[in-house]
Amino acid sequence: MARKVTLGAAQVGAVHRDTPRAEVLARLIRLLEQANDKGVKLLVYPETTLTTFFPRYAGLDEDKAELDKWFEHGDLGSNDNVKPLLDRASQLGIDIVLGYGEKTDDGHYYNTCSYLHRGVEVGKYRKVHLPGNKEPYADPNMIDQLEKRYFEPGDYGFKAFRVPDLASSPDHGEAVVGMMICNDRRWAEAWRCLGLQGVELVCLGYNTSTWAPGLFGHPMDADRAKIQAQSEMQHLLVMQCHSYTNATFSIAAARAGYDDGEFGLIGCSCIVHPEGYILAQSSTMDDELVVAEIDLDEAQVGKRKVFNFGLHRQIHQYKIITEQSGVTAPPRLA
Amino acid sequence: MARKVTLGAAQVGAVHRDTPRAEVLARLIRLLEQANDKGVKLLVYPETTLTTFFPRYAGLDEDKAELDKWFEHGDLGSNDNVKPLLDRASQLGIDIVLGYGEKTDDGHYYNTCSYLHRGVEVGKYRKVHLPGNKEPYADPNMIDQLEKRYFEPGDYGFKAFRVPDLASSPDHGEAVVGMMICNDRRWAEAWRCLGLQGVELVCLGYNTSTWAPGLFGHPMDADRAKIQAQSEMQHLLVMQCHSYTNATFSIAAARAGYDDGEFGLIGCSCIVHPEGYILAQSSTMDDELVVAEIDLDEAQVGKRKVFNFGLHRQIHQYKIITEQSGVTAPPRLA
Repeated sequence: MARKVTLGAAQVGAVHRDTPRAEVLARLIRLLEQANDKGVKLLVYPETTLTTFFPRYAGLDEDKAELDKWFEHGDLGSNDNVKPLLDRASQLGIDIVLGYGEKTDDGHYYNTCSYLHRGVEVGKYRKVHLPGNKEPYADPNMIDQLEKRYFEPGDYGFKAFRVPDLASSPDHGEAVVGMMICNDRRWAEAWRCLGLQGVELVCLGYNTSTWAPGLFGHPMDADRAKIQAQSEMQHLLVMQCHSYTNATFSIAAARAGYDDGEFGLIGCSCIVHPEGYILAQSSTMDDELVVAEIDLDEAQVGKRKVFNFGLHRQIHQYKIITEQSGVTAPPRLA
Repeated sequence: MARKVTLGAAQVGAVHRDTPRAEVLARLIRLLEQANDKGVKLLVYPETTLTTFFPRYAGLDEDKAELDKWFEHGDLGSNDNVKPLLDRASQLGIDIVLGYGEKTDDGHYYNTCSYLHRGVEVGKYRKVHLPGNKEPYADPNMIDQLEKRYFEPGDYGFKAFRVPDLASSPDHGEAVVGMMICNDRRWAEAWRCLGLQGVELVCLGYNTSTWAPGLFGHPMDADRAKIQAQSEMQHLLVMQCHSYTNATFSIAAARAGYDDGEFGLIGCSCIVHPEGYILAQSSTMDDELVVAEIDLDEAQVGKRKVFNFGLHRQIHQYKIITEQSGVTAPPRLA
């Protein structure tokens, strides 16, 4: 009994600070149409899909109205910035995962993504691991990364959920799906929380700098090609390793290219197999569709054997993982 | 202020069921002498360094005296199977990590490794994640993996410890070191427990089958080259990813080659940088020394930035990691 399904990652190239939302939306719909041509049933879009990656700009919160332009308020289905995409996805019968800045009714701000199945939100996630800083750098040569300023850490935790009728199998087409956003993928805890819920498919969008002094400690004039290669390597490493060690498929969709012509973001959108190898990967830094047909049942192999958690995990030895957030080093020698 | 030190992994090729211990010991000392020629200050040997990987043989415990031949009892320094190696290492001023089957005075059996600094044990670890089965396979075509039968899960947990005078810096030469054994490296929890103690260097020995039906579900006649490539890829993946996400150097030493001419084990001994890239890797399946000079201070870069645990971890979201060992899936849809 196979559960076959064709998956897609919608990589989105450069989106500038002044790129009109209507233009971005048209590009997202173009990728959706391409996905439909390839038989894709689930298409994952990047983090903050609808705009450029605004946490790099200091001062947005000096004026709340200015800040709010970067966020979506209220129901996505009645939001003109999103509705045409949701409608077309429903029409085509394609599930989508969409990342966006979320402003709640009671005034909280999150870095969020939603899983939309035929227009209905069946899963929602708010980014837990916010990188970067609260305060802008004093040094004008440093690129800011103000996620800790513009967002609160997600309050939903890592909740896997079931998606009906994703795979082709008539009597067992549903899938256990989880979501995370960008930096979360570097944190084994995020993956394990989903793994402990039997996740078969992890969906992730990201904006990852090719060089970012605030994140990597490199000056602006460092060797960009080398930093880009290292960022790409590390991205693939965490996607492959954590997919393997949790016996899950994963889809990673990048915002890639040079925003505003100067802020570089890696590509490397990919679809990964539960044994840890890459099934498909983007080859450009532009808008690009990445597609792979998979059999969800292959996620069960690792779950029964090497990563049979119930047989092998020794939770009494892991206590410090949930007891302390920071480091406690062994005492210095005399 | 750099803390430079030259590290070594002592890969050991085929050791058969009937290979005399004296012959193995001579090979270990030969690798130590080579390490000395290269200026190595810490040399890591594989899991169960002194014998073949005996958990593949069923029936060893039918006769306790027969079983005990595979284990070391009492103090390593007064054990003729080990003493010549410890003495020579002390003489040369080289620290070693040695894996062995351990039988305790009160009759417990563990898969153990010791960190010996100038002949003194400054760290000890007993393998927590025992793979395989308690009962031998009924099918004679399946290779047994009876670690769950011959060993108890380690009772020490994952304890980092300080090693004095490892690096060349006169006033700050000590290092925070952790150890794990083979299958532990696939478990993010093992790495994180060490990471939360500020580990700078993880030492690991392993015996990893190129094909092992009990572990990977492959029949004996499966495509061995393909399985070997996948095992090697997965081994490097977990070493690189977990080193990166815990901002630590790591050393992995393989028992490699074809034991008894038929049981294949991967090589790929390696030394990994805290940014996740491989500094040095073995190229054979035989006895081989792998060497890299490193600066321990480079492990501090990630600990201050991307993997500054105190700044970024959200432990209240991780609770299920220590509350449940097995999977609890979301409820099935109606």
